[in-house]
Amino acid sequence: MSPITSTVVTGIGELVTNDPSAGEGPLGIVNDAALVVDDGTVAWVGPATDAPAADRRVDVEGRAVLPGFVDSHSHLVFAGERSAEFEARMSGVPYDGGGIASTVRATRDADDDTLRRRVKALLAEMRAQGTTTVEIKSGYGLTVDDEARALRIAREFTQETTFLGAHVVPPEYSGRVDEYVELVTGPMLQACSPHARWIDVFCEPGSPHAFDGDASRAVLQAGQEAGLELRVHGNQLSYGPGVLLAVEHGAASVDHCTFLDDEDVAALVGSSTVATLLPGVEFSTRQPYPDARRLIDAGVTVALATDCNPGTCFTSSMPICTALAVREMRMTPVEAVWAATEGAAKSLRRKDIGHLRVGARADLAVLEAPSYRHLAYRPGVPLTRTLEIPS
Amino acid sequence: MSPITSTVVTGIGELVTNDPSAGEGPLGIVNDAALVVDDGTVAWVGPATDAPAADRRVDVEGRAVLPGFVDSHSHLVFAGERSAEFEARMSGVPYDGGGIASTVRATRDADDDTLRRRVKALLAEMRAQGTTTVEIKSGYGLTVDDEARALRIAREFTQETTFLGAHVVPPEYSGRVDEYVELVTGPMLQACSPHARWIDVFCEPGSPHAFDGDASRAVLQAGQEAGLELRVHGNQLSYGPGVLLAVEHGAASVDHCTFLDDEDVAALVGSSTVATLLPGVEFSTRQPYPDARRLIDAGVTVALATDCNPGTCFTSSMPICTALAVREMRMTPVEAVWAATEGAAKSLRRKDIGHLRVGARADLAVLEAPSYRHLAYRPGVPLTRTLEIPS
Repeated sequence: MSPITSTVVTGIGELVTNDPSAGEGPLGIVNDAALVVDDGTVAWVGPATDAPAADRRVDVEGRAVLPGFVDSHSHLVFAGERSAEFEARMSGVPYDGGGIASTVRATRDADDDTLRRRVKALLAEMRAQGTTTVEIKSGYGLTVDDEARALRIAREFTQETTFLGAHVVPPEYSGRVDEYVELVTGPMLQACSPHARWIDVFCEPGSPHAFDGDASRAVLQAGQEAGLELRVHGNQLSYGPGVLLAVEHGAASVDHCTFLDDEDVAALVGSSTVATLLPGVEFSTRQPYPDARRLIDAGVTVALATDCNPGTCFTSSMPICTALAVREMRMTPVEAVWAATEGAAKSLRRKDIGHLRVGARADLAVLEAPSYRHLAYRPGVPLTRTLEIPS
Repeated sequence: MSPITSTVVTGIGELVTNDPSAGEGPLGIVNDAALVVDDGTVAWVGPATDAPAADRRVDVEGRAVLPGFVDSHSHLVFAGERSAEFEARMSGVPYDGGGIASTVRATRDADDDTLRRRVKALLAEMRAQGTTTVEIKSGYGLTVDDEARALRIAREFTQETTFLGAHVVPPEYSGRVDEYVELVTGPMLQACSPHARWIDVFCEPGSPHAFDGDASRAVLQAGQEAGLELRVHGNQLSYGPGVLLAVEHGAASVDHCTFLDDEDVAALVGSSTVATLLPGVEFSTRQPYPDARRLIDAGVTVALATDCNPGTCFTSSMPICTALAVREMRMTPVEAVWAATEGAAKSLRRKDIGHLRVGARADLAVLEAPSYRHLAYRPGVPLTRTLEIPS
């Protein structure tokens, strides 16, 4: 039982609070700021000249401080890698879509410690880049035991675990999607739900590997009945029912959102469903980027995440995702930073992260730069790290 | 006088030598390799099982090792920053081109130590990302004294210094380009040539801020007569005479090369002039990318560099430039790695860097990954560092 001590972070050249009442603009920016952390929680925020005393002092010497990034979409429990497939795809060699099956094989064959070490290494890599909350999906096991194992391992590291048995139809169920959905919504759900907060489904009717509207609805309803909250992979590769299903079921997030018609956008407006965009995927696959401007201009809440996975996007970098959001999706730097912090927190229905209001978790990212603008201004430069507050 | 000692680097999962006779493919890849460094020079390369003994041993535990990146185009001697201008440009606010003048003002106003600290910090940032050779241009002083000062400071850090008095026409010479060219080719060249290896000119006849064909020719000829070697900024914003001038004068490199006609490509083929592409600029300005495939397929030698500067591209990351080259310019991962190492070394007419043949400088980059492919496969992730060999 160590005594609770407080720390004042001083010398903050620019503090992004995401609290418009605390500072300038939508990011609630306070210049020449200080912040007091008490027992892991933000206890005070304001101009450095008004900062109260604290037991300890950390001086960041003029750097910018942001809420830690919230990566609300990742697939970290897997074995193997697919850089040769990536190289072939980028070099124009036709790709037959067989890649994900190789990750499923490697994941099933790996022992727990191998999977655990990979998750741990990727989370450390994320934390070193300023990410302080990570959602982790299953989805490379696709048997009752392998999905439950993936979630048990993920749960060792985060509360934000997502059961994604309905990621793809595994090869052994090829042509028998209905039987696989029965497995997912029956024994697999039963084995997985104790280890998961969320359930997710890859709704993509045009793909033989994914799930159509009816199958997706069955997965979401079964998950809801088992007490899980909902997320959807929707409208990534073509127009389809993913967004409407997500909104209809009150899902917290629908992710990808590349192919949207007017009805989809209208449904998202005013709903409690966040549109999570994953521009690293489009960067790594040369697919078209989602139309972020259309969503934001319509009033939809937008989040950014990495989708870190060995196939379609193996970046763990929230900074490059914000840079891509600015360059390729024409989000402003302000919108991109908000979407990667508070927007992503909303997609996880979390009120304690993604901002630095009093009472928030003291998850802090510090930039080797004077302003949040440098995230997009200096693409690829490792500027961001998590500010570790001694406790 | 410390005794010369040798170091064997072992556990190299994949070694990129750029020596096709030493290993597989154009990158000369040796798997499960070792490399001996003797007095700062590569003394032996081969399979780990054949490695000779050495005084010391560094185990990289399966990681990939590459020749250190060669960043052959940078503008590091400046003061101030322009992230607000970047944010405005990305947000669609019309930009009046006045930005560079603000960097010139800030640079002239800064004292030597301010400029020196900035160069040192950016070089440390580059080295931390695996870059071991950096070319540095002047071009934000634009007076005799300020250009000479920039080159003196650059020379403290690199032999690859480039006199770029003909970067832009400074405001005080607006409408008097001929007079400014007389200054550049006269007193400014005389003051700068002792501190520079190279002379460079921004040849862009359509821009009121840059130099047309005749002015560019005058700058290159005067530089050559003063004993400097030649580089050219050419064909960045429109078709023009830059490439042909570069080839005609035997320049080592013509940089940017976005707008090329068939005659330009034909002139580069078989010439001693390298085409240096700078995809970070197009990423940060939303300009069209150069057609790397057309150049490579025609047989032109292509290099990649950052163009690190506070206006059009403030990345210092050679890894993100290789990822952009693959994603946006359709270079293969092999071509991109070669262009960022040996290609860039050729653009500096250096035979001792950019590869790991016996006799090369022991400039080594190590990846937190098993293969060079991860540079493009994992965009934005800080995988690369310089491997420091104790001496």
